[in-house]
Amino acid sequence: MSSLRAAARLRPVASQWAPKSSLRPYATAAALKPSAPSAEQPFFTNEPSGPTVKTAIPGPESKKAIEELDKVFDTRSLNMLANYQKSFGNYIADPDGNVLLDVYAQIASIPVGYSNPALYAAATSPQMASAIINRPALGNFPSHDWASILKTGILSVAPKGLDQVFTAMAGSDANETAYKAAFMWRRQQERGGAHIEFSEEDIASSMLNQSPGAPQLSILSFKSGFHGRLFGSLSTTRSKPIHKIDIPAFDWPQATFPLLKYPLEDHVQENAKAEADALADVERIITTHHLPPCAVVVEPIQSEGGDNHASPAFFRGLRALTKKHNVLLIVDEVQTGVGATGKFWAHDHWNLETPPDMVTFSKKAQTAGYYFGNPELRPNKPYRQFNTWMGDPARAILFRAIIEEIERLDLVTNTAKVGEYLYNGIEELGKLYPGQVLNLRGKGQGTFIAFDSPRRDEVLRKAKSVGVNVGGSGERAVRLRPMLIFQKHHADILLEALEKILKS
Amino acid sequence: MSSLRAAARLRPVASQWAPKSSLRPYATAAALKPSAPSAEQPFFTNEPSGPTVKTAIPGPESKKAIEELDKVFDTRSLNMLANYQKSFGNYIADPDGNVLLDVYAQIASIPVGYSNPALYAAATSPQMASAIINRPALGNFPSHDWASILKTGILSVAPKGLDQVFTAMAGSDANETAYKAAFMWRRQQERGGAHIEFSEEDIASSMLNQSPGAPQLSILSFKSGFHGRLFGSLSTTRSKPIHKIDIPAFDWPQATFPLLKYPLEDHVQENAKAEADALADVERIITTHHLPPCAVVVEPIQSEGGDNHASPAFFRGLRALTKKHNVLLIVDEVQTGVGATGKFWAHDHWNLETPPDMVTFSKKAQTAGYYFGNPELRPNKPYRQFNTWMGDPARAILFRAIIEEIERLDLVTNTAKVGEYLYNGIEELGKLYPGQVLNLRGKGQGTFIAFDSPRRDEVLRKAKSVGVNVGGSGERAVRLRPMLIFQKHHADILLEALEKILKS
Repeated sequence: MSSLRAAARLRPVASQWAPKSSLRPYATAAALKPSAPSAEQPFFTNEPSGPTVKTAIPGPESKKAIEELDKVFDTRSLNMLANYQKSFGNYIADPDGNVLLDVYAQIASIPVGYSNPALYAAATSPQMASAIINRPALGNFPSHDWASILKTGILSVAPKGLDQVFTAMAGSDANETAYKAAFMWRRQQERGGAHIEFSEEDIASSMLNQSPGAPQLSILSFKSGFHGRLFGSLSTTRSKPIHKIDIPAFDWPQATFPLLKYPLEDHVQENAKAEADALADVERIITTHHLPPCAVVVEPIQSEGGDNHASPAFFRGLRALTKKHNVLLIVDEVQTGVGATGKFWAHDHWNLETPPDMVTFSKKAQTAGYYFGNPELRPNKPYRQFNTWMGDPARAILFRAIIEEIERLDLVTNTAKVGEYLYNGIEELGKLYPGQVLNLRGKGQGTFIAFDSPRRDEVLRKAKSVGVNVGGSGERAVRLRPMLIFQKHHADILLEALEKILKS
Repeated sequence: MSSLRAAARLRPVASQWAPKSSLRPYATAAALKPSAPSAEQPFFTNEPSGPTVKTAIPGPESKKAIEELDKVFDTRSLNMLANYQKSFGNYIADPDGNVLLDVYAQIASIPVGYSNPALYAAATSPQMASAIINRPALGNFPSHDWASILKTGILSVAPKGLDQVFTAMAGSDANETAYKAAFMWRRQQERGGAHIEFSEEDIASSMLNQSPGAPQLSILSFKSGFHGRLFGSLSTTRSKPIHKIDIPAFDWPQATFPLLKYPLEDHVQENAKAEADALADVERIITTHHLPPCAVVVEPIQSEGGDNHASPAFFRGLRALTKKHNVLLIVDEVQTGVGATGKFWAHDHWNLETPPDMVTFSKKAQTAGYYFGNPELRPNKPYRQFNTWMGDPARAILFRAIIEEIERLDLVTNTAKVGEYLYNGIEELGKLYPGQVLNLRGKGQGTFIAFDSPRRDEVLRKAKSVGVNVGGSGERAVRLRPMLIFQKHHADILLEALEKILKS
């Protein structure tokens, strides 16, 4: 570990990755708070000082390449073709020489910047090379250093109270394996304990996809929630019809998610009532649904569904309800986890008395899985929770390097501070341009900030022309998902760009 | 590509990976055909000349490490702790200095040997480092070289008639995304074409997990089949109760898979009848099941389910039936694909008149996805088949290097030849030790060989003590899954080891 750390500090970015030409500074003076950035040291000296917009996006080179790609790969959801070898820090480059400040960051999944030198060192280490070319079937033949990789990486940032992990490949299967653990746990309770054998009826009916072997149980999720797009996870996803239409689904229930009104301080009672009503809905479903839920899955902030927040009190209430009715609480931190909300895990904001039963992760971790603590969540026999690869040690090694980089640069603190600065800046813009910045949310949640726009799709499109890559969520939210290395001087560039768009 | 090829040829294995001590030759003389191996050139000069068994497995070092690992990771399915940095070619090493000939190969997923020098070169290339640390959301922000990586890699070995790919993470989600494509295709046909918009009823009901938006359709699979362990794929998996019990499943149907009798030449009529009956069962289900199947999924050789084979005529019949009833045929080549059967794809053995509609892959490809050709299988709108990562370019780059290595060493031809030699050797052993080698199968199928044993678990256990790592499948099959670099001299070592066990 310590030698890897040292390597990460010392190793320069490979010279072939350095920018070919010096990038034209686009905007270094802050539009709104010109005095702020001057004192700040950039984390990375090789990062461009600002965006460069040379052509419309896509430009001619990109267009040619997209046409070529379309012959073999569906490009209709393509947002922008990228050249990652020319992308550094917060900046994404394209084949036409455009360089944009990226506050979408691969749908919130790049944690510490493009071409990060410390990650480069980890990616070119002999341990990584072996992990890439000698990929194990982890459940059968783990490597001698797997325990160490887990302990110094994934488990070193485990949420409080959870000291075990089941590793997976991405958010969808992380959630689905957590659901499987929940179903096994509930049926074990119904049988009377881990020592009770499966009945003949369980065994026979499971092979026919019939109950009781394939039980009539459910996972409860929330309206507008997003938990993935495979068959089990999609049955809990309630974000948009385009995600769900034509795909068979389990008849699992959904509860109301409180839709808070903004600004929060002007709607205290209304919002408290919305949260109480949502909790009542949860309790009603748990106690009456024809497929009893064995777990509730919830995002700390509904992300794909439109950046919908709820208060810590709501989540404490949800934890109390699930405890009361012996239902598991699965917190889906796929998008919120790993620092972006100003705490390492978003549910750290809630001050729960007892931890969630399982916490799933992916995206910024660059690996995936679910954390748990209760030994009863380890299935009672081997091979019940199993697959060939069960994750990817190469990606686990990368997450360890990401964690080290977060610690080295104190990036969770950075994100909390910069988030506050950015939030205040957008609030100011909202005052300057009435009606353009609606329902601003994410106060005190790091850079996990969003607002609604009456012309959202236009805002996202125009952002590229002023040097910024930004995404949306839900029907009308502008969703900001900067990396953890987003600093005040980046916030100033973003604010200036937003102002240009709002003005136009 | 050509420079990568050159690098792969020239680059020596990094010195830190060389064996620390010279390995004691265990067996180089062939037990059954002593003249065979002497003329053969080993593919890799750094490979041990034979196994080394120093301790019982697990030995003292492994035991200590397993105890440590068990604190944070479920080790009940652990077969053997490995040290991959000391594993070369066909040989897997452990922390106690044991080195075994590995004919299980990470559940059939290592294609060209441990610590393969050409893969090492690819794994340490700047392109790989960028792919590891700058992981894109492929559907939104593909890299400028993604088309080239696909064309020179994954698509360069696409099955005949299939020129498109949707990339995924592993076998389970490769199958599930193929299923999703099948459901969308069927519903589009029912609507009357790609240009017909979704109805209000479709849109509203899909958000409630109800039909018609979440349609009452199914995927038909076969008894004993294995297609993965997430909720949709598990509903088509019919291998063992331990895979399925306590997990909710879709009420999807299963057809009889023909259970052939061996030796095949003694049961020609009986086996033909078993295959005809199985096809009749498929047709009955397609035409009468209350959830109409829109696709049939089948493995060319049922692998987890016990190495069950069927004839090319059966699969041609299945293709004809699916064509007749306008049902898609999905061939699951997760375990059979990438050379092990003596052809690159196992379904190449069938001489189909029209290709399968989709072919899924994973394991030896070290990346995953499904191939397709029919443009109607591209969903009619963007974001219908989509997720954040949609695969992993790093793993796609690795597959390209694997393909180059397969071509350089002509490994598919090698596997066909060595498979024949190995099959004949096991057939001989069956004659020498009556009752010990039952239902030998895999003739003409490369090294994809299996036989039943009356004391299967004992055989697998004892194999380690004579220097071989071998796996099982189904209830009593000894499953041989050597890598593609398995040569005659390895076959001789395996045959000698098997003889020792059968003798005992």
